[in-house]
Amino acid sequence: MNLCIIATGGTFDKRYDPINGELGFADSVIPAALARARMNAEVDFVALLAMDSLDMHDQHRRQISDACASAPQQHIVIVHGTDTAQQTAQVIAQAAHQKTIVLTGAMVPYEIDGSDALFNLGFAMAAAQLLPAGVYIAMNAQVFPWDDVRKNRQAGRFERNR
Amino acid sequence: MNLCIIATGGTFDKRYDPINGELGFADSVIPAALARARMNAEVDFVALLAMDSLDMHDQHRRQISDACASAPQQHIVIVHGTDTAQQTAQVIAQAAHQKTIVLTGAMVPYEIDGSDALFNLGFAMAAAQLLPAGVYIAMNAQVFPWDDVRKNRQAGRFERNR
Amino acid sequence: MNLCIIATGGTFDKRYDPINGELGFADSVIPAALARARMNAEVDFVALLAMDSLDMHDQHRRQISDACASAPQQHIVIVHGTDTAQQTAQVIAQAAHQKTIVLTGAMVPYEIDGSDALFNLGFAMAAAQLLPAGVYIAMNAQVFPWDDVRKNRQAGRFERNR
Amino acid sequence: MNLCIIATGGTFDKRYDPINGELGFADSVIPAALARARMNAEVDFVALLAMDSLDMHDQHRRQISDACASAPQQHIVIVHGTDTAQQTAQVIAQAAHQKTIVLTGAMVPYEIDGSDALFNLGFAMAAAQLLPAGVYIAMNAQVFPWDDVRKNRQAGRFERNR
Repeated sequence: MNLCIIATGGTFDKRYDPINGELGFADSVIPAALARARMNAEVDFVALLAMDSLDMHDQHRRQISDACASAPQQHIVIVHGTDTAQQTAQVIAQAAHQKTIVLTGAMVPYEIDGSDALFNLGFAMAAAQLLPAGVYIAMNAQVFPWDDVRKNRQAGRFERNR
Repeated sequence: MNLCIIATGGTFDKRYDPINGELGFADSVIPAALARARMNAEVDFVALLAMDSLDMHDQHRRQISDACASAPQQHIVIVHGTDTAQQTAQVIAQAAHQKTIVLTGAMVPYEIDGSDALFNLGFAMAAAQLLPAGVYIAMNAQVFPWDDVRKNRQAGRFERNR
Repeated sequence: MNLCIIATGGTFDKRYDPINGELGFADSVIPAALARARMNAEVDFVALLAMDSLDMHDQHRRQISDACASAPQQHIVIVHGTDTAQQTAQVIAQAAHQKTIVLTGAMVPYEIDGSDALFNLGFAMAAAQLLPAGVYIAMNAQVFPWDDVRKNRQAGRFERNR
Repeated sequence: MNLCIIATGGTFDKRYDPINGELGFADSVIPAALARARMNAEVDFVALLAMDSLDMHDQHRRQISDACASAPQQHIVIVHGTDTAQQTAQVIAQAAHQKTIVLTGAMVPYEIDGSDALFNLGFAMAAAQLLPAGVYIAMNAQVFPWDDVRKNRQAGRFERNR
């Protein structure tokens, strides 16, 4: 499958640590999530970063953009924290990769009851295969162009800018 | 959202009955699955049928096709049993609806550990929004044209005919 | 820990098979359930049988009773199908083991949403450690003497005989 | 059933808030957990406190002890944070209630994959019904007298003092 999944952390991949009682990062949940889809061919998975997107600096965003460039695939899903997904999308868009790049994430971690993570991963993997080249954010069962989306923090949803 | 979800039953929606110890049908799990996506607008949900697709006859398939025609939306996801999804897709395709109609299902019921149902629903909802008019089956993170797909029953996966 | 867990199958341990679409038996879920308890010492686990209790014959019940006798532990939990747990309890009681033996099971398989299996396992493991020698059935947050219990099949609950 | 469940918060009852991205307190999960046990009679449930046990002061512990006194039941389970369960147990023990009072909790919140909460609740509910009057902590499939237990914070387990 001409598709690559790049993990960068974010709520999607946060895991509970019973020793310190906090949500943090350990091994990514994404391989387990992908296994549920029972794909005919293995999809490439790159565990690039494991961080809260509020802690990202420009260097991290460039690192993600570089990973998009060096991936042999034309279609890319990036699992990212929702708080700064737009900033990363902008850095990627400015690099003009001529690929279809879809950022997604989750409002509730994969391993917590009622999580949207698995839904969003499925949604983003279809979007990345079907959309023309460009940079998009896929959340809340919707595809947004990277330059026409904002996170409504009160509602916990992504919406168009206007 | 210009999208309608039609439930017809199938493994996706099978639920355990503690009294008789069997998997069967009760209220559809789809509204709960959709709530996890935290959509900006409610999506239309039609609980049309609740049956094993091996028990479907032509009248059921015509009923599903008619529901596609009468839905005001242009984009439709049908949650269907995997065993005869192709037959239903054929009946729908012959009706030439000029809509984008995506059938999906699950290999493991939504409420059982490790289910692919939520992933498939997300995947199909993106596919239904992005594909041109036509009839498709979306399973295993892949979009198949309705006339080029078969279920490999040994592997529990959908694949191209050839 | 002076405690042994004996698996015999039953609803507790039924697992969904995505290929044939039915609930059946595979590796027991009990080791995974026990790991969640984060015990200080490993508990002995014996995977004796994996069957529906409606399919049990006297030889199976004697096999279970013999496993109780040969276990080095004084306290035993048997995970069993709910439909004939009383019959097995009677066979064990007639063997007069001078041990504390608690049968439990589940109305919903461990791996299905809303299962009572983990609750029942915890309940039975406390009961087996605290009750005097004898044979008991522990279900529905209650301890029943083996000769004063019946399964109310309409309600899906165990209750006293009278 | 001559049994009362008192909620005070703790990890057992922590819930994820998708808006602020943190674990906190909302409606208790305990009624949903109890429903899974399919009890013959409803058990009394008291939602007394909803707090991290590290934030408890003496007044909270006295409030819990008073709730034990005023409960009409002889057998009581207290769901409590694990970090200061011993201190609360001591305050309760000093009040000399002549009841069987069992404190339990969880290392992983009820609504997170792999949680011990449901197991611990079942274990504590059996212990509270079967132990003589006294104050106990039930964790890790073990019953500890209140004055011979400590939480090993590195291992995330309760153990005897020595």
